Amino acid sequence: MNIAILGFGTVGSGVYDIVANGDRRMRVTAIFIRPTHPATMPEMTTDFDAILADPTIDVVVEAIGGLHPAHDYILRALQHGKHVVTANKAVVARYLPEFTATAAQHDVRFYFEATTGGGIPWIRNLERAARIDQVDTIEGIFNGTSNYILDQMQRAHLDFDPVLLAAKDMGYAEADPSADIDGDDIVNKLKISAALAYDMVPPRDVPKFGIRHVSKADIDFFAKHDQVLRLIGKSKRIDDHYSMVVEPRLYPATALAANTFENFNIIRLHGQTIGDLQFYGQGAGKYPTANAIVQDLFDILENVAHLKRDFGQTLQFDPDLSVADYLLRADPMTFAMFSDKQTEIVDHRLLIKQIPVGEMHRLMRGVLAIDAHAFMAAIGDSELTARDVKQQIDQEVIG
Amino acid sequence: MNIAILGFGTVGSGVYDIVANGDRRMRVTAIFIRPTHPATMPEMTTDFDAILADPTIDVVVEAIGGLHPAHDYILRALQHGKHVVTANKAVVARYLPEFTATAAQHDVRFYFEATTGGGIPWIRNLERAARIDQVDTIEGIFNGTSNYILDQMQRAHLDFDPVLLAAKDMGYAEADPSADIDGDDIVNKLKISAALAYDMVPPRDVPKFGIRHVSKADIDFFAKHDQVLRLIGKSKRIDDHYSMVVEPRLYPATALAANTFENFNIIRLHGQTIGDLQFYGQGAGKYPTANAIVQDLFDILENVAHLKRDFGQTLQFDPDLSVADYLLRADPMTFAMFSDKQTEIVDHRLLIKQIPVGEMHRLMRGVLAIDAHAFMAAIGDSELTARDVKQQIDQEVIG
Repeated sequence: MNIAILGFGTVGSGVYDIVANGDRRMRVTAIFIRPTHPATMPEMTTDFDAILADPTIDVVVEAIGGLHPAHDYILRALQHGKHVVTANKAVVARYLPEFTATAAQHDVRFYFEATTGGGIPWIRNLERAARIDQVDTIEGIFNGTSNYILDQMQRAHLDFDPVLLAAKDMGYAEADPSADIDGDDIVNKLKISAALAYDMVPPRDVPKFGIRHVSKADIDFFAKHDQVLRLIGKSKRIDDHYSMVVEPRLYPATALAANTFENFNIIRLHGQTIGDLQFYGQGAGKYPTANAIVQDLFDILENVAHLKRDFGQTLQFDPDLSVADYLLRADPMTFAMFSDKQTEIVDHRLLIKQIPVGEMHRLMRGVLAIDAHAFMAAIGDSELTARDVKQQIDQEVIG
Repeated sequence: MNIAILGFGTVGSGVYDIVANGDRRMRVTAIFIRPTHPATMPEMTTDFDAILADPTIDVVVEAIGGLHPAHDYILRALQHGKHVVTANKAVVARYLPEFTATAAQHDVRFYFEATTGGGIPWIRNLERAARIDQVDTIEGIFNGTSNYILDQMQRAHLDFDPVLLAAKDMGYAEADPSADIDGDDIVNKLKISAALAYDMVPPRDVPKFGIRHVSKADIDFFAKHDQVLRLIGKSKRIDDHYSMVVEPRLYPATALAANTFENFNIIRLHGQTIGDLQFYGQGAGKYPTANAIVQDLFDILENVAHLKRDFGQTLQFDPDLSVADYLLRADPMTFAMFSDKQTEIVDHRLLIKQIPVGEMHRLMRGVLAIDAHAFMAAIGDSELTARDVKQQIDQEVIG
């Protein structure tokens, strides 16, 4: 099986290394680089059309990133009868139905394990779970950069800015870290996951709130109450309604998510017969991400069909399907916005009880208009904390 | 695809339910029951030979358990050209190479996801990881009954016997719980995992020590030191040597294993490119186990080949490959056995430092000859606690 890699950055070169040292049935025969990149290897070319026209190339690995020209390259590769494997979450979140339809039309595969969860075999296991169960919950730490920042803030007792700076120095955060800290990266991964789980086209806009405004004082306050802050994505389905949200959420110290440190990811699904499954691993990095791509290459080589989806289900997106408690740290004059809710003041913060998630995110926009540095975090309504509910039941049984 | 289920207990009936409510390409057309079982459904038969002779039956699901007659039934089904799926860890741990060879000879599949980790897709993901990486570590909580007991002892502050009694009442432990609390069940699952990971025939004898002797005082002592006790299986490979052990092990309170409660399982693998992957879920139970069997049925239906293994690698089994610290609670007269080791007395217990695992298990037999109620637990040498090692590195970098 002959492979062309588009882009020879961290991920592309990682794929090259694994294939070169791995199964002899696979070979990288072309590497597409920009004209500005030095052509240091005989496989390198700046001619994408030559790759398309080469009948010996079976698979194109897209490792360029971004929406354009990635969208065009992927489509054209599929139209030229080449299987495509990609790690590009932005382009897959936006164009998954189009890519899937085009691949089917040209009788080739379009696989994208590396888009979500890095090295964690999340996509494949979500697809397998969905063969049997209606997956009704997806929840997890989908982004390593933001997890690294929150974890370091708590453990090193530092504020957001110095930790972000250190994360950049270590290569854990990009020069422009917005996509990681504001939640857009998680939105893309959650869209891909929900599209597969529910077989539908995800909404363009998902309620999201990032960690840009979290302070050392916030983290200290949470720690005092044995709560650990994580930036998560969550989707829930009930019958033909579903919700999706990206937001900071508090977990009790004994939750697996609270014990997911550094830049690791953990992602959970729930289905009727399988119950809770959780997957933990490296959500990014050269070789874990390249490993996920090579897994897809193996599936193509071994003719392993992935889940068939046409994204044709008409489900109702309802941001208010889930209800949670929220802790709000903001100028107290904003608290009046929640006067029709059940609230409580805890250490100068407002605890808002059982508010629909979508409504809280809408109201938060009003809060931010008054206090641009306000921060909120959800509590409760999370099966990652199922232990605490179960604990009561067990104590009744055991005595 | 027509399916015969052998045995209609918890697991067999769970498979029946999922298939009946699932994909229409699968049908259960025969259920093999003992003559003593009332034949309440038209599919039920006591004639195994009729199932073998029926050319319309494609797959046999073995859900009887035990070594015999399961071994004979599986072999004969394969020889009659039927795919076989089983949840029977004892028979697979003993006869995996024979079953695999027989299946290959008759061009059928032999799949066994449900043997290990219950509903956790462990076998399939281990196989997939091994397509790319040399998996060098397997470690985990493979048994829900023992985990339930240890978790309840810690949380309800009870001694072993009352918790075991309650576990039996709730159906979490069998009338004879030996296989669960003495580690034999874990030995079987670890053998299956290591056989796949290293492509070799596992040793007949694996060092094991169970939790039969653990006391409330032990657990309280560990808790005082922020350590959580878990009964685990672990295998490690370095070049052409490997170790396997089943034993009680202490984890710091922030390890994922320490936060795996109730009867849940968590299993970890480590490979060169993928790093750490961990899989968490229900290690037993009717529908999770049946789900794992139906996953195998889907793979047969969709012609998904699993990892090819002939178990032909000649690796050296070395129980002393790994080194760990141990905490020993025993009659102090036994402590003299460790006089050539680096030791320390901690609260009337002996802390033995950096002793080879196999040697510790051999010496423990001598300890038990003097004090039949002695207990030991390993500490350290565990990547499930990698956080603590990393913590130091991070603090240097960040602050």
